[in-house]
Amino acid sequence: MSHKQHQQLIDALQDCIVACNHCYDACLKEEHVQMMTECIRLDRECAEICSYLAQALCRDTPFAAELASVCAAICEACGNECKKHEHEHCQKCADACFKCAEACKKIA
Amino acid sequence: MSHKQHQQLIDALQDCIVACNHCYDACLKEEHVQMMTECIRLDRECAEICSYLAQALCRDTPFAAELASVCAAICEACGNECKKHEHEHCQKCADACFKCAEACKKIA
Amino acid sequence: MSHKQHQQLIDALQDCIVACNHCYDACLKEEHVQMMTECIRLDRECAEICSYLAQALCRDTPFAAELASVCAAICEACGNECKKHEHEHCQKCADACFKCAEACKKIA
Amino acid sequence: MSHKQHQQLIDALQDCIVACNHCYDACLKEEHVQMMTECIRLDRECAEICSYLAQALCRDTPFAAELASVCAAICEACGNECKKHEHEHCQKCADACFKCAEACKKIA
Repeated sequence: MSHKQHQQLIDALQDCIVACNHCYDACLKEEHVQMMTECIRLDRECAEICSYLAQALCRDTPFAAELASVCAAICEACGNECKKHEHEHCQKCADACFKCAEACKKIA
Repeated sequence: MSHKQHQQLIDALQDCIVACNHCYDACLKEEHVQMMTECIRLDRECAEICSYLAQALCRDTPFAAELASVCAAICEACGNECKKHEHEHCQKCADACFKCAEACKKIA
Repeated sequence: MSHKQHQQLIDALQDCIVACNHCYDACLKEEHVQMMTECIRLDRECAEICSYLAQALCRDTPFAAELASVCAAICEACGNECKKHEHEHCQKCADACFKCAEACKKIA
Repeated sequence: MSHKQHQQLIDALQDCIVACNHCYDACLKEEHVQMMTECIRLDRECAEICSYLAQALCRDTPFAAELASVCAAICEACGNECKKHEHEHCQKCADACFKCAEACKKIA
């Protein structure tokens, strides 16, 4: 499948990368950072795998399905953690993660 | 500077990542791949530094200026190489690289 | 599991990253680069996933098993392709890939 | 310059990647994580640029000097922050960062 056919997923991945890195940054600036450590950890993990997968899809990787499957699992874990916190950056991140997980599952 | 203020650059970086990886993939499928080796090499280099910088900006890196300066140099080198080749993927990639280099220079 | 317990795998991943990037570079300099395009493509894919996994293990990712499983599959694909070519850089890369695939499977 | 000639730097970068990711993980597990936020942030930044540079050197990037210069600056910033904290993981990370910064400067 060419990178054009993956366009919807690539868009979802790029949105998720931005949301996760922004949430990571904002969590590190929160007063109660102690409560945000799992969020920080998963934000990084999620941003890194999304960044990897976005690039891999654009270069027509033969491992799209396997990588999308792992990416979906990490996006869901990050979304579930973010969902617990009321901060706007966490809620936005959760939305981006769940959308990305759905898009990943279509090719996984 | 927050990631919102960097939005234009982040958009340019994300477009450049897609264009470079697509050009890389298409170059490897060209009949005369021998003539495309420098393009392949620079496409990868450019995609990787853009991907790094996009993430770093979203997490409010304190090294935005230094990284954008290196990224601008790599984008220009890639754009100059791609510009030499008539393939549509190379011309599109050159455009994305030059736009990204300009956006990088604004914060470098 | 801590990063100390993963030390053998981290070493194998780091060796594989070096071997794959060297093979990638050497393939692009070969006279008959047309025959090396699949090798170039897989060298990059393999180096990138190994680099991702090495970092993820060092930071105690909760997704070690899933990521190691994908990494093993990519290492094997790269090793199988490299094995076909007589160049010393390809043979060395194949060895590093197969060792890394074995190490990945222990935690996958 | 070939990847063999860069071997000392590649070793220093790989050690620094491990130390930074371990310190990042350990900081997130510390009781007083509030005091470690700058360390967490710089550990990630440093690990990511070292990982990028290690790969770029192995594939004989034409941008070794520029990238090593930025990497040296980030390693020093991370080392200076880690040095302030008494945790063993911070002190070890500071050592790895300063060694890596020195090695970077030789080719910058």
